[in-house]
Amino acid sequence: MSFNPVLPRSARILVLSCGALLTLALPVTQAQDSASSVDEPRHVILIIGDGMDDQQITIARNYLVGATGRLSLDHMALRSSSQILTIEDKVGGAPVYVGDSANTATTMASGVLTSRGRVSTAAGSNHPIPTIVEMAEAAGYKTGIVSTASVTDATPAAFATHISFRLCENPETMLDITYKDIHLGDCLNERKSEGGLGSISEQLAESALDVILGGGMKHFNMTAEGNTGTVTALAERNGFQLVTTLDQLASATTSRRLLGLFSDSTMPVRLQGENGRLAESPEPSWLNYIHRYLGDVTQPEPMTCEANPAFTGMPTLKQMTDAALAHLSHNNSRGFFLMIESASIDKQSHERRPCGSIGELAQLNEALDSALAFAEKNPRTLILVTADHAQAAQLIPYESLFAEFPIPIYTPGKLARIKTPEGRILVVNYATNNFSYAEHTGANVPLFSNEEGRGIVPSFIQQAEIFSISAGYLQLN
Amino acid sequence: MSFNPVLPRSARILVLSCGALLTLALPVTQAQDSASSVDEPRHVILIIGDGMDDQQITIARNYLVGATGRLSLDHMALRSSSQILTIEDKVGGAPVYVGDSANTATTMASGVLTSRGRVSTAAGSNHPIPTIVEMAEAAGYKTGIVSTASVTDATPAAFATHISFRLCENPETMLDITYKDIHLGDCLNERKSEGGLGSISEQLAESALDVILGGGMKHFNMTAEGNTGTVTALAERNGFQLVTTLDQLASATTSRRLLGLFSDSTMPVRLQGENGRLAESPEPSWLNYIHRYLGDVTQPEPMTCEANPAFTGMPTLKQMTDAALAHLSHNNSRGFFLMIESASIDKQSHERRPCGSIGELAQLNEALDSALAFAEKNPRTLILVTADHAQAAQLIPYESLFAEFPIPIYTPGKLARIKTPEGRILVVNYATNNFSYAEHTGANVPLFSNEEGRGIVPSFIQQAEIFSISAGYLQLN
Repeated sequence: MSFNPVLPRSARILVLSCGALLTLALPVTQAQDSASSVDEPRHVILIIGDGMDDQQITIARNYLVGATGRLSLDHMALRSSSQILTIEDKVGGAPVYVGDSANTATTMASGVLTSRGRVSTAAGSNHPIPTIVEMAEAAGYKTGIVSTASVTDATPAAFATHISFRLCENPETMLDITYKDIHLGDCLNERKSEGGLGSISEQLAESALDVILGGGMKHFNMTAEGNTGTVTALAERNGFQLVTTLDQLASATTSRRLLGLFSDSTMPVRLQGENGRLAESPEPSWLNYIHRYLGDVTQPEPMTCEANPAFTGMPTLKQMTDAALAHLSHNNSRGFFLMIESASIDKQSHERRPCGSIGELAQLNEALDSALAFAEKNPRTLILVTADHAQAAQLIPYESLFAEFPIPIYTPGKLARIKTPEGRILVVNYATNNFSYAEHTGANVPLFSNEEGRGIVPSFIQQAEIFSISAGYLQLN
Repeated sequence: MSFNPVLPRSARILVLSCGALLTLALPVTQAQDSASSVDEPRHVILIIGDGMDDQQITIARNYLVGATGRLSLDHMALRSSSQILTIEDKVGGAPVYVGDSANTATTMASGVLTSRGRVSTAAGSNHPIPTIVEMAEAAGYKTGIVSTASVTDATPAAFATHISFRLCENPETMLDITYKDIHLGDCLNERKSEGGLGSISEQLAESALDVILGGGMKHFNMTAEGNTGTVTALAERNGFQLVTTLDQLASATTSRRLLGLFSDSTMPVRLQGENGRLAESPEPSWLNYIHRYLGDVTQPEPMTCEANPAFTGMPTLKQMTDAALAHLSHNNSRGFFLMIESASIDKQSHERRPCGSIGELAQLNEALDSALAFAEKNPRTLILVTADHAQAAQLIPYESLFAEFPIPIYTPGKLARIKTPEGRILVVNYATNNFSYAEHTGANVPLFSNEEGRGIVPSFIQQAEIFSISAGYLQLN
């Protein structure tokens, strides 16, 4: 796969700061030309369930609506599958079989493959890669990103910003990212003072986005590079109204651009395990350590999922979606591109918290309901729902398939046994590694579309086609 | 979900022994009536990849055609997803979230949910459940089952036989099934002498099937209950020509019913790990046993996949498919129902042999090519491809997502690191349990269809709908 042509740095900065007003750069002109004949506004709503593979969906379905129930996802008109592709961090890099949210969001946003950790910058060369948000803005569309993560997190970031390392989310992490005394990286050469675009929060503050909603206040509440004020102040100077509570979100004017930051970092999730429990290790008896055929094993006690107290008062993903749709459709005869992410299906799976993932999949499903209701009234609305990559969680049997054998059988990883509302036990296993965070997996992931996708969403795609389908629908290419 | 009406035992035996000749029983009459207006022959080819979930497909795709390649599966016109449902072994049993090949094949064959281990018999009551093969035969269609497992194995068995326990594959196992000194069960009350239908091999020998191809000779090469001769002899008396080699298969007459048994048990698979290697445990250093942040870990050496010598001379699944299609379409103005199973995607995954699963997925893909070629010439051919349940294998990263942390990160299970033809390393993890055989998992599984499925295969189904879609296409209900 070849890279898309990349705008020269000078032109890019112009695009980023002038946004919808600019009509000079090459991709912009093409888009304007081809779209000029369109009368009805066109909308693309891309909903990303981070890590939302078929195991996650089935686990959530069984819990939320019962084994014979159906999620809104299951009612979508079309189902396809998306092959995830990543490459080494060099020009023309060879394939890597398991991706992360940075490279996969880049691919969905731009149609270009890149390496893990990169936010819309090219593997090897570090060139910024134009995104559908920028192209749509340049073609006169409104744009928005909504996430339950920090808005600076890899998935939302890749739709509107460009940086070599996903953790350079704010001016301070540009200088040094250290976690538990381990230096993970920096983006020194991408500071503005070095001719770069600055950190993710600064790029968002200076972006032409119409709506930015999610978590991540801490990345904005610090001094912007070369400024005396904060990144938040930078955003306000750039025309954003800032909201930080559900009430403020509800009363925000639809006539001004909207930056909503509702938590310091990732937004709290809706559900948690009983008393905060996560997946745990089965405990074999001492005899079982002597030989695996001996002794017995104590499995983790079954638990319920319960409301997470920290979620109280947070806007739901549906409420953020509704606000985004109201803002983007206000006084808009052209249309919009909106990316909505339920981020913590993935983050909770990394932490081996199945109740958390289930609750965030429910949030995605509700946001989808809002998108479907919008599409009902606005027929030229393409809704795509997909995952960026597969995740660690596996639904495994409550009673082993080999239970006739009188020996202790148990996972070598960690598992949670969840009591479902239909009175059964759902067992979720996490066993991709021995680290504090589980690994992603490499399976192709589901892609759903509403009827509007018929004829343009084939039954199997490579992930880059999510860009070309979206851009094609908006007549950008 | 309610059970289908079940034929009384006496009527069932009549159906099983007289097959296509019988037109008296209820479902038969209905089918004959509604189908009488059809002129063109109609064919259903149901291809089951046992355990073929999206992890398995992606692993195989990356290995067989490269990360940017496409399998024949990926070119199928329609993609859907099938929710697997199982129940406890009692009448009106509650849902069980992970199934096995016996209950899932029963559901696909009959539209009825049952409990694990059951072969087209009802949970709790043990009533035989009429299958699509029997209904199709009664309506004048030809029928066939093809499998790389023993033809007596759960998947093929559930399409044409009825028994409470899947391991009652032959007259001897009816009396006692013992494995490693553990009594796993029996089917004493289902012997013919007790008024039952006898073992799976006996039921197949006495069936009205037109084509039976696969492994499992050992289940036929023993004395049939109440007979002096073998089960094979019983089959021959019932009109089957027996073939046991590829040459005999190629030269078999298409005008006689065909029983092909090419190996004693499961047919040997096409690929194996280098020198027979399977997934192995990473080996942490002794320091790492003291604390998980210390020491280092030795991962299993990368390996190639190689041809399995035992596969030499075996008919491929494609060759069996071609033979089945030739036999079933010979002099047939009505049409047929054909079930084709690539069984060892699952069996090799249980044994943690990823190369084996990859080779068997390649076999399925080639059999699909034959089915597609047949459909090209015979437009009224519905091809469905699906899995019966998900499996243990996970494609995990070669380099951990957390590799910046200077500590040993490795799976607690077993993994294989496979050198792919495109020069990369594909890592497959098996970590559902500590037993000799990995567990199934509970994710919904892919369902593919050719264009003929448009309008009758929705984007999401429950597994029972595979029966209703197939039966509807053949106008049986």
